[in-house]
Amino acid sequence: MIGNVLVAQSGGPTSVINASLVGVVQKAKELGVQRIFGGLNGIEGILQEKLVVLSAEHPADIEAVQYRPGAILGGCRYQIKDPKPEGSELKRLFSILKKYDIRYFFYIGGNDSMDTAQKIHVAAQKLKVDLRVIGVPKTIDNDLFGTDHCPGFGSCAKYLITSVVEAGIHTASMYTAEPVTILVTVGRNAGWLAGACGLARREKNEAPHIVLFPEIPFEEDRFLEKVKSVYEEVGGVFIVTGEGLRSRAGTYITARYDGLSTDAFGHPLLGDVPITLKHLIEKNLRLRTRWIKPDICQQAALHMASRVDLEEARMCGESAVQLAVQNGESGYMVTIERVEGRGDTTYASRCGKVPLSAVANVDRYVPRHFIDTEGFFPSEEFLHYANPLIQGEVPIRMKDGFPYYPTLRLEHVRYPE
Amino acid sequence: MIGNVLVAQSGGPTSVINASLVGVVQKAKELGVQRIFGGLNGIEGILQEKLVVLSAEHPADIEAVQYRPGAILGGCRYQIKDPKPEGSELKRLFSILKKYDIRYFFYIGGNDSMDTAQKIHVAAQKLKVDLRVIGVPKTIDNDLFGTDHCPGFGSCAKYLITSVVEAGIHTASMYTAEPVTILVTVGRNAGWLAGACGLARREKNEAPHIVLFPEIPFEEDRFLEKVKSVYEEVGGVFIVTGEGLRSRAGTYITARYDGLSTDAFGHPLLGDVPITLKHLIEKNLRLRTRWIKPDICQQAALHMASRVDLEEARMCGESAVQLAVQNGESGYMVTIERVEGRGDTTYASRCGKVPLSAVANVDRYVPRHFIDTEGFFPSEEFLHYANPLIQGEVPIRMKDGFPYYPTLRLEHVRYPE
Repeated sequence: MIGNVLVAQSGGPTSVINASLVGVVQKAKELGVQRIFGGLNGIEGILQEKLVVLSAEHPADIEAVQYRPGAILGGCRYQIKDPKPEGSELKRLFSILKKYDIRYFFYIGGNDSMDTAQKIHVAAQKLKVDLRVIGVPKTIDNDLFGTDHCPGFGSCAKYLITSVVEAGIHTASMYTAEPVTILVTVGRNAGWLAGACGLARREKNEAPHIVLFPEIPFEEDRFLEKVKSVYEEVGGVFIVTGEGLRSRAGTYITARYDGLSTDAFGHPLLGDVPITLKHLIEKNLRLRTRWIKPDICQQAALHMASRVDLEEARMCGESAVQLAVQNGESGYMVTIERVEGRGDTTYASRCGKVPLSAVANVDRYVPRHFIDTEGFFPSEEFLHYANPLIQGEVPIRMKDGFPYYPTLRLEHVRYPE
Repeated sequence: MIGNVLVAQSGGPTSVINASLVGVVQKAKELGVQRIFGGLNGIEGILQEKLVVLSAEHPADIEAVQYRPGAILGGCRYQIKDPKPEGSELKRLFSILKKYDIRYFFYIGGNDSMDTAQKIHVAAQKLKVDLRVIGVPKTIDNDLFGTDHCPGFGSCAKYLITSVVEAGIHTASMYTAEPVTILVTVGRNAGWLAGACGLARREKNEAPHIVLFPEIPFEEDRFLEKVKSVYEEVGGVFIVTGEGLRSRAGTYITARYDGLSTDAFGHPLLGDVPITLKHLIEKNLRLRTRWIKPDICQQAALHMASRVDLEEARMCGESAVQLAVQNGESGYMVTIERVEGRGDTTYASRCGKVPLSAVANVDRYVPRHFIDTEGFFPSEEFLHYANPLIQGEVPIRMKDGFPYYPTLRLEHVRYPE
C-alpha cells in the first residue's frame, strides 16, 4: 500500500489539459496506486471536499478523455492566501488529504497554480505530513519559467495560425474594400502566441504582415508608418497582436479610448487592443479595418490541436507521477526539455524538473532576439523554435456534422454530512 | 462558336465561394465554351478590364481551387450606381464584354450583387446586347430571397457550432470563476447563423443556453431575467448573438455605450453587441463575462466546412451555366430547392431559379415559427431545417502543421495601353 493520488486542474483550461490528467491517472495505475482522486475546480473545490474517484472510471473512458477540451475536473482562479501551515485553509486541506490517505498531489496549472503547489509543499514539509507535491505545467501563454515550452501552447498556436492563414486569404481577396484585419491573441504580457502566428506566412506578402509583441513598447507613429508601408507594398495589412500593448511609459494603449474607466468589479477597464488599433488606423490612414477576437476558442479548439503538444502534455502528467511515486520527490514542476537541434525533422523532447519555488509567480517573456530588429515580426529563431510544437493532428470524432467530445462519469466521493 | 463566359465574385467571400466558381468553369468547358474569363474584384475590376483567363489554367488546378477559402478572383463592395443603359459604367461594361466576345455573365454574390446583375440584364435587353446574365447565390447570412438556403451558410454554421461546442465545454469547466461567455456571429439583421448555433446543444444544459435573434426586439429586463434563471439552474451561461440587436423602438442597443459616436468615415459607430451585453450582465448580475468575435474566421474556415454546402455551392455554379448556355436564359438567380422531407437521412436538394428582380436588395428574415415562443432559442423546426446543411467534411491538405490551400496562376489578359 503506497497511498492514494489526488490530481486537480487549475487556471484556464487548454485543449490538451486533459491529456496531462490522463497521463497522471494511467501512470499512477501502472505504478500500483489503488485509488486516484480528482479534485473538482482545483484547490477551490478540494477545500470543499469536492472529490471524484478517477480510478473508478472505465479505463477506456479515461483514455478517451484526453480528446476533450476544457478541464474535465473544472479549473479555478483560486489561490491559497495564507501560506502558514497552521492557517485555516492549509489545515483543512491536510485533514482532507489525510481522510483519503492521499500521499501524492499533482496540480496541473500555470504559474499561479505553481505558487499554490509550492505553498502546499512547504507546509507539508514543515508539518512533516507525508505528501509529495508535483506541478504539471499548463498554459497557452507559454510563459512558465524553466521549461522550453508549455503544454497547451502548441495547440493554441496551431489553431491561431490556421485562423491567420484562412482569414489572411479572405482579407487578401477583399483588399479593395476592407484592406486591414487585426487578430488579437490571448497574452497580456508575453507575446509567445502572437509571435507563433508568424509561422502562417509561407510566402512573402502573405498574412501576417505585422506582429505586435507586448514586449515591444508601442509607438503610434512607428506603427502607423509600418501599416502604411505594408499597405503600399502589399495592398492590404494583416496584423496579429497580443492583448496588452503599452507605451514606453508603461501605460496600456487601450486605456484612453474607453468610455468607461472601470468595469462592474471596479477593476480598470483596459478596453480591447484591436478597437484601439482600428480607430488609429481608420482615423489616420483611412483604411477600413476589421478585427477578430478568438478569445477562449483558441484555448478550446481541440479540433485543430497539435499532436506533438497533446503527447507532451500527457508525457508531463506521466513524468510527474514518476517523480513523486517512483522517486519520492516533491516540490518540483515537470518541465519539457528539447533534446535535439532545431527544425521539425530533428525535434525530440523529454521531461525534466525545476523547483516550484523558481516557477511560482514568475513570467517568462519573449527574448529580444526572438523578435526581428524592426520589432514588428518574430525572428527566424522564434519560428524555428515554434515550428516543431504545432506538428501533427489529433483525431476528432465527428457526429451529426460537428465534433463530439467524450466525457467521464465523475463519481463523487460521499460528501461529509 | 457560342461566345465566351465571364464569371466574377462579389461581396464578402464564403469558404465555399470558389466551389461555385469551379462549377461555372467546369460546366462551361463541358458545354464547349472556348474562353472563360474571370473578372477580378467583381464588377469593380471588370470595369477596369481586370480580367484573367480561367480556361488557361491547368484543369487540375481549377478542380483543386474549390478547396481554398476567400474569393480566388477577389470580392468587392462595389455597385453600379446608374442603372441607365446609356450610363457611363454600363456603356464601358458592354464595350469590354464585346471586346472579349462575352455572351454569358455569371455573378456570384449576395443580394447587392443580384441587384448589379439585374441592372446589367435589363440594360442588355434594352440595348439588344446578346448577353445572358445569371446570378449564383452566395452568403453566409442565408438571407437571400427565393432559395431554401444559401451556399456558404452551412459551412459557416458548422464552424460556429464547433466553436460553441468547444468554447461551451471550456466555459463549463470555468463556471466558478468566469460563468458567462458570449459569442457574436455575423448578421446584423437576420439571425440565421445565431439560430443555427442551437444545433450545438446535444444535451440539456449544454451550450448554447441563449440565442439572441436580431428579429426579436431586445428587452433588457427580460434578457437579464433569462440570464439569471439559466445561471441559477445551470451554473453558467453561454450566449450566442447576432451583430444587430434592436429595442422595440428600433434603435440598436449598442449605440449608447460607445465613447465615439461616428467612425473615421462618418458612419454611426454601433459598437459591439457583446461589449454591451457584457456590461449589462456584469453591472446587473455581477457575473464575469467573456466574449468571442470570430468575425471573418467564420467566413473563411474551410478546415471546418460542410461537404453538403461545398457540393451545393458547386452545383449552383454548374446550374447557372446550364441555364444560360444550354437553355439561353437570362435574368435569374439560381436557387437551392429542398427535395425531400426534413432530417439528415432524407435530405436532398436540386437547383431552381428565381428572377433577379425578386432577389435584388431583398432580405429574408428568420420566420417567427423558427424561434421558440420565449424568443431565446431556435425552434425544433429551425434545427431540423439547419441540420442537413452542416453535414460531411471537406478534405484539407495539411503542410508543416497547418492547412495549405491551393491557388491559381491567374494569367491576366493583356491590359489596354
